Amino acid sequence: MSEPRRSIATVCLSGTLEDKLAAAAAAGFDGVEIFENDLIASAASPAEIGVRCRDLGLSVDLYQPFRDFEAVPPARLRDNLRRAERKFDVMEQLGADLVLVCSTVSPDAVDDDELAAEQLRTLAQRAEARGMRVAYEALAWGRFVNTYEHSWRIVRRADHPALGLCLDTFHVLSRDGDPALIRTIPGEKLFFLQLADAPQLDMDVLQWSRHHRLFPGQGSFDLATFAGNVLEAGYTGPLSLEVFNDVFRQADPKPAAVDAMRSLRMLEEQLGIPVAEPAPDLDGYAFTELVADPATATRLAEGLAALGFTETGEHRSKPVRRWEQGGARVLINTTASTSDTAEIGALAVESSDPLRSARRAEAMSSPILPRERGPQEAGLSSVAAPDGTGVFFCDTAAPDGWLSDFRDTATPGRGLGVTGIDHVSLTQPFDHFDEAALFCRSVLGLEPEEITEYAAPFGMVRNRGMVDATCSVRIALNGTLVRRGEWAPAVRDPQHIAFTCTGVIAAAEHLRASGAPVLSIPDNYYDDLDARFGLRPELLETLRRCSVLYDRDAGGEFLHLFTELFGSRVFLELVQRVDDYAGYGVANAPVRMAAHRRQRMTASGR
Amino acid sequence: MSEPRRSIATVCLSGTLEDKLAAAAAAGFDGVEIFENDLIASAASPAEIGVRCRDLGLSVDLYQPFRDFEAVPPARLRDNLRRAERKFDVMEQLGADLVLVCSTVSPDAVDDDELAAEQLRTLAQRAEARGMRVAYEALAWGRFVNTYEHSWRIVRRADHPALGLCLDTFHVLSRDGDPALIRTIPGEKLFFLQLADAPQLDMDVLQWSRHHRLFPGQGSFDLATFAGNVLEAGYTGPLSLEVFNDVFRQADPKPAAVDAMRSLRMLEEQLGIPVAEPAPDLDGYAFTELVADPATATRLAEGLAALGFTETGEHRSKPVRRWEQGGARVLINTTASTSDTAEIGALAVESSDPLRSARRAEAMSSPILPRERGPQEAGLSSVAAPDGTGVFFCDTAAPDGWLSDFRDTATPGRGLGVTGIDHVSLTQPFDHFDEAALFCRSVLGLEPEEITEYAAPFGMVRNRGMVDATCSVRIALNGTLVRRGEWAPAVRDPQHIAFTCTGVIAAAEHLRASGAPVLSIPDNYYDDLDARFGLRPELLETLRRCSVLYDRDAGGEFLHLFTELFGSRVFLELVQRVDDYAGYGVANAPVRMAAHRRQRMTASGR
Repeated sequence: MSEPRRSIATVCLSGTLEDKLAAAAAAGFDGVEIFENDLIASAASPAEIGVRCRDLGLSVDLYQPFRDFEAVPPARLRDNLRRAERKFDVMEQLGADLVLVCSTVSPDAVDDDELAAEQLRTLAQRAEARGMRVAYEALAWGRFVNTYEHSWRIVRRADHPALGLCLDTFHVLSRDGDPALIRTIPGEKLFFLQLADAPQLDMDVLQWSRHHRLFPGQGSFDLATFAGNVLEAGYTGPLSLEVFNDVFRQADPKPAAVDAMRSLRMLEEQLGIPVAEPAPDLDGYAFTELVADPATATRLAEGLAALGFTETGEHRSKPVRRWEQGGARVLINTTASTSDTAEIGALAVESSDPLRSARRAEAMSSPILPRERGPQEAGLSSVAAPDGTGVFFCDTAAPDGWLSDFRDTATPGRGLGVTGIDHVSLTQPFDHFDEAALFCRSVLGLEPEEITEYAAPFGMVRNRGMVDATCSVRIALNGTLVRRGEWAPAVRDPQHIAFTCTGVIAAAEHLRASGAPVLSIPDNYYDDLDARFGLRPELLETLRRCSVLYDRDAGGEFLHLFTELFGSRVFLELVQRVDDYAGYGVANAPVRMAAHRRQRMTASGR
Repeated sequence: MSEPRRSIATVCLSGTLEDKLAAAAAAGFDGVEIFENDLIASAASPAEIGVRCRDLGLSVDLYQPFRDFEAVPPARLRDNLRRAERKFDVMEQLGADLVLVCSTVSPDAVDDDELAAEQLRTLAQRAEARGMRVAYEALAWGRFVNTYEHSWRIVRRADHPALGLCLDTFHVLSRDGDPALIRTIPGEKLFFLQLADAPQLDMDVLQWSRHHRLFPGQGSFDLATFAGNVLEAGYTGPLSLEVFNDVFRQADPKPAAVDAMRSLRMLEEQLGIPVAEPAPDLDGYAFTELVADPATATRLAEGLAALGFTETGEHRSKPVRRWEQGGARVLINTTASTSDTAEIGALAVESSDPLRSARRAEAMSSPILPRERGPQEAGLSSVAAPDGTGVFFCDTAAPDGWLSDFRDTATPGRGLGVTGIDHVSLTQPFDHFDEAALFCRSVLGLEPEEITEYAAPFGMVRNRGMVDATCSVRIALNGTLVRRGEWAPAVRDPQHIAFTCTGVIAAAEHLRASGAPVLSIPDNYYDDLDARFGLRPELLETLRRCSVLYDRDAGGEFLHLFTELFGSRVFLELVQRVDDYAGYGVANAPVRMAAHRRQRMTASGR
């Protein structure tokens, strides 16, 4: 199957119509659906917008929406036909030949399929006379027509070549509709396909549709099966995104359009369209790079040393030191210029084929970052995640791999039982939470876990793990449910690296003895742990003494401890998964957040 | 009836437990419900928190929540009793003697009222032995017990003096429960009353409860009837707020606690408790004050002159000029120091008793602002609305009224038909939208209209009119559904004054001829108007020529025009309500917003 044409409804993106068209074109879309209100607010005439679209390489695939047309009394029909002719005027200027007519929600309408079909046929005749066509769509909340099967019965009854169906995945799947019957509809009657995903929510379907739609792959609908049926029926139009989402509506349209394009490419891949080479298998983290100012870097180095890491190398040309322990590697880059700064600048994964990983990333709308490097240095490819973190694809064992950029200075010591990186936790910018998950999924081949929401001291937080098939790479995405305002914790957008440790309690005892900067956890937490889990008193006292936290799920137990913050947002964690514990200790996150705030408030003398 | 004790659950407010207690005390609460997770994250021991509360004048009225206790197999009962004893330890230290037990949602539990009653009696015996009591609450989503009637049957069956009911308005009213039967419950069995309002939403009740509760008077529940029944039954405990709200959870707790207190006072007033003198009748706007830098003030003055206003006076001691036209008065204050600045600094309403208005404002947690004034100046009282706008209470006709602070410099000219101020439109800070409505309601005696949501070019916006009984004072509150991020329109937080005009079209023709800074509305808007309304062609062309906008509702028609922006956020509007049009032309707001952005982008040369 060849690549289909790709469209996006202007309503998916924020800004003026001009902003939206520019963003859609820049992201590589072939066409747009023009949402009427976007045009109405524009100072450019429809003809000028048409020219603009053609200049940008965009076709105008649909004009929408035309509401409340059919099954009305004669006087109202006359008004509606007049209204339609005015819109045909606009479409003519735009260079659009397809209009979307939504099933009526009007109190004027009657429940009469024959009347609806007759009036739609009249509309189709008018359209045909002007070289246009009408795509009739069943809204999930249509007054009488709210399933695609019903809209198809009416279109079939109207039997006019200029009248066909528009299928919108949301309207069908939100009502648990069965997309299998789509295959029975003749392809030439399928005029348009609108794609939208959504999280599974138990709420009024109109509100769900207007506020919470997502791009494909960001929600829980099976769009591949749906779109597969449509293509199998013989649909030849574009794959078009129509997503109403409160966050996207106010986010920068340029990255949002890229996100949209990525979602479409991933869907196409699921449909068997060869848009990208498959994601290579991953095998854990190669390294994580922390970027800090020199003073904070010194504290980070002391912290890593306390956790049992050894400084094992220095970069041949950059102010970067390599720290290691049992397969966990951390780079400390001291190029940050603002004091009190540390952040995760990059993470690197072991890929079975780094070049293919890079090619896939480019095909998935994540271009390889330009990178300065010395003449002898390894050709590492990296892409930027939506939060700006660099993602490298590595083959550490290769002779000319990234390690050759470092001069070895020492061999790792015995350490404290750290064997690797369990996960990297990244707080995502508010506008990019769903995009981040899609990035991990499409570019890295990670699969999303369930979203967990919890009440933290400074607002609701959500957490979503992304994990590869062998659980060798986990990324924990975090974000707030409401964009942070002025009132906020001392710690904004925290990030951390969690190291796998064979014995967190033994490590914790050692850290306690050595005076390491372990985050102090309050007694109240342990009193509650006692109430909830009834742990053995000796274990409970050890946890309390060493500030080790505890969680349990159906698969097993979780022991973990946090360091204090280095700079304003970065900390480290040691974790131990006993048996098959699958989570991230999220239940303990509010306690950790309050403790980090105490650390910062104490440090700032407040 | 005397003033009851007032409590607030710590979960209503953002921050650490210490932040929350401080905010609750500062707002005047008598007690708190301590939410367990707030305590667990605190480094202060329960005993220390108990001392802190007493030092702040707060009693600990409830410890909550204790979940999934009742109707379980014997082994689980032993665990649960052990867990309860640990929590009694905590309560003892806190100085709390009442624990909230929520009806079970556990898969371990069975549907057996007798077993539930027996086990709750056992728990009550344990509590009694420690001088404590248990308040049993039916969660709306309880597995077996989800109505207060059912929880009361179980409590009655358990028949223990240390076991009573906790009633939560949300859990009853979200399920359309009938609060009338509360009157049949003996007062001594009503241990606790939790108050929460909510907007009417059609969604999963647990999600509704956890994210969307509001303070009393901010939603659509009839809390007065509910609480009245509880008091009538003989309840003597505190009126306590328990509100889970995503926005309040991340907003500054100090104003949020004041908002909470105000909501409680208004509810008490509805219950017939004499907390404040009634709101005096209002009779329109006395004036609106615009604060601008001198250059922007000059442009504003030119704009007002173009709209037919006359500069009629100057303040005796301050850089403030008075402009008038047919009962509409605008003050221009030139004390702003930042260029390109104009904002609505204050609005003033005519009160039938300004001193009583001020006393009511103070009783409703809105203290009178301190104010510098000269020895001869009128004693105007003003309070601050949640967005910082000053609100003055005036009696303009009084001999020593505010007009006496001005030296008259001219008498108003003929003007363009402006007769007064129709409404003032204020964009509210994201965290304070619901608070603003409650302020208008409780302090000014305005009633809320329906919230209208609409898609604007840069995100979803909501609009809520607040209006007095005679429609003499209207305030339009605006806000975004999602807090604005970096990507945003040129116009942030727009504000405007809408003047009533007897003939907007005639005024518009005049303005066009005079070259006034009227906001230019695009042709596309008029083409759509034509399609939608089929206006007479001459009318349509006049509207188009003069950039007059049009709307229609069940009551009548609306003609309005906007000026360009003065500074970065303020503009003016002329409005004409034909017959009984009740809205604010919100349907046209997106067109206006896009046009203002064009004005700003053009001005900045982008």
